Amino acid sequence: MIQLPEVIKNAVEALTHLPGVGEKTAFRMVMNMTHWKANELEAVGGALINLRHLETCSDCGMFSDGNLCSICSDDSRSRLETLCVVENASDLMAIEKSGHFRGVYHILGGVLNPLLGVGPDELRMDDLKDRIEQKEIKEVILAINPSVEGDATCSYFKTLLPEKIKVERIGFGVPIGGSLEYLDPMTITKALENRKKF
Amino acid sequence: MIQLPEVIKNAVEALTHLPGVGEKTAFRMVMNMTHWKANELEAVGGALINLRHLETCSDCGMFSDGNLCSICSDDSRSRLETLCVVENASDLMAIEKSGHFRGVYHILGGVLNPLLGVGPDELRMDDLKDRIEQKEIKEVILAINPSVEGDATCSYFKTLLPEKIKVERIGFGVPIGGSLEYLDPMTITKALENRKKF
Repeated sequence: MIQLPEVIKNAVEALTHLPGVGEKTAFRMVMNMTHWKANELEAVGGALINLRHLETCSDCGMFSDGNLCSICSDDSRSRLETLCVVENASDLMAIEKSGHFRGVYHILGGVLNPLLGVGPDELRMDDLKDRIEQKEIKEVILAINPSVEGDATCSYFKTLLPEKIKVERIGFGVPIGGSLEYLDPMTITKALENRKKF
Repeated sequence: MIQLPEVIKNAVEALTHLPGVGEKTAFRMVMNMTHWKANELEAVGGALINLRHLETCSDCGMFSDGNLCSICSDDSRSRLETLCVVENASDLMAIEKSGHFRGVYHILGGVLNPLLGVGPDELRMDDLKDRIEQKEIKEVILAINPSVEGDATCSYFKTLLPEKIKVERIGFGVPIGGSLEYLDPMTITKALENRKKF
């Protein structure tokens, strides 16, 4: 086998750290990049390195360009008394895309997972409690994904908040465009439980 | 829609330059990288930037750590009088993997393609001619992929070399493990033309 230069091996190894990129894909990427100009390589490498300067919103924890993100600094949204709790930034963006929610968010940074050593202190739980008190939030929507850990996080959460706050969890059931035929028994159970007067 | 920070947008844009990475994949990669530590980001970014220092073998054009690649600096191979011409480094590595060829290579850097402005001057043709003369090569194997441009490159090549040199092109036909049922008519035509006494 031919001995490849260290710079190639290092670049291949580095790219395999990206999600969904195995050694073969990384190698194909690097082979393509060997034809790039120095400034193109610097642009890509630099853009990735610059991610270390990423700032987060001091209120909700979303990525931001300054102290507050564009949602928390939007008066028409931040003065509403509804707060939506999500696990991470991707979940927040998915909800934003629906355009249905007009309040503010709070990113937990994960869910409780004792097996992986994630307790309340590892999540932004205290921040959230303070925020709910300060901003006089009256309604909390838990947009936490359905899983054993997600369910436990929601239960823990409920015990944390004062009684007067309305705490709700997003609905689970058949997704729009979905077909009962292809859905798992758990989703169908949830859909039956969550039936509504029609 | 939420306004994402510039550093995220830049990183997503940068990653879409990689082969096989669209905007969605790039976004997923960047979301994952937002959890990385600064030194991890620097390792990946730096490894890509370092590709600009990639050196090539002065003889065959393969990537190398010094002046000569590991094949050209291997005496047992470079003193043989057989040279294999390939389009690019990936093709060279594919042949190396077979372990069947023991001579040296020459990377052309592509094939003649007048429509894309690739003429003999854009390829390492002159280098090759000089090399064949200097090293007293007696046999040239053209491992150029079968395509209109590849065929034209091989024909051009033949006119370039002195008569006394044996020029051969790799065989085309049914790949091992392939099935006639699924092969294209062109490959089957080639396989029939290239039949051998059994």
